Amino acid sequence: LPHGDCALSRLLRRLLAARRSLEICLFAFSSPQLGRAVRLLHGRGVRVRVVTDAQYMGLRGSQIGLLRQAGIQVRHDQEGGYMHHKFAVVDGRVLITGSLNWTTQAIQNNRENVLVVEDAEYVKPFLDEFERIWEEYNPANYRFFP
Amino acid sequence: LPHGDCALSRLLRRLLAARRSLEICLFAFSSPQLGRAVRLLHGRGVRVRVVTDAQYMGLRGSQIGLLRQAGIQVRHDQEGGYMHHKFAVVDGRVLITGSLNWTTQAIQNNRENVLVVEDAEYVKPFLDEFERIWEEYNPANYRFFP
Repeated sequence: LPHGDCALSRLLRRLLAARRSLEICLFAFSSPQLGRAVRLLHGRGVRVRVVTDAQYMGLRGSQIGLLRQAGIQVRHDQEGGYMHHKFAVVDGRVLITGSLNWTTQAIQNNRENVLVVEDAEYVKPFLDEFERIWEEYNPANYRFFP
Repeated sequence: LPHGDCALSRLLRRLLAARRSLEICLFAFSSPQLGRAVRLLHGRGVRVRVVTDAQYMGLRGSQIGLLRQAGIQVRHDQEGGYMHHKFAVVDGRVLITGSLNWTTQAIQNNRENVLVVEDAEYVKPFLDEFERIWEEYNPANYRFFP
């Protein structure tokens, strides 16, 4: 549970190890360094998919617009509640999860935790949840006139 | 990653299994059911310690006042950043962690995750962090005139 630059560089190292796929499921994503890393992976041909919260993604500083601009697939909730997860899965086998949103405020100033887990027993429910949310938030299912 | 009442009853079951100690480290704690469970454990003689966020604990619906009224030790941060953790440790060996704050909104309406982990390798860093925060937030160390 390291702080600040140490937490950021550990997280970057884990992400940049991705070779095939990266699933990201984040309430808040505004860290420029992490945004850059994700765009870099996309540029390298890693399949990146992002799920985020509709209320947060439009706030100033959000990285979501830049990710979309780079051609990365992003989906968001259509519900009253928050999409409050904060996890990522690298290459289908490394789960990064905890209390940390990917924001500079959280990385620099908050008390946070990040768990990195490689046991399939823990990783699978998160991957399953990601696929469930990915389908549920498919734009083809949006209901503009409910 | 179950929702609503199912998530709540699983969490309650894990908490109510406590026999000796319960450490709680939560950004937001406003669920009346979980508040009742924690007071019940305290009444049974389980050593309960709570760490929370100063900005959130005074909000309407917070359970922190009721916990203190019941005689439970609560400590909070004195920093600008958030105490953003959301974890609990039962009897020093079961870690409950994830994205979930203990609020009715989160339990009923949000997409959240809760991990229950018993491997000492994962539990120990959280227990260590709790003890570190517990000492750091000791009221004897408050600086009213910094």
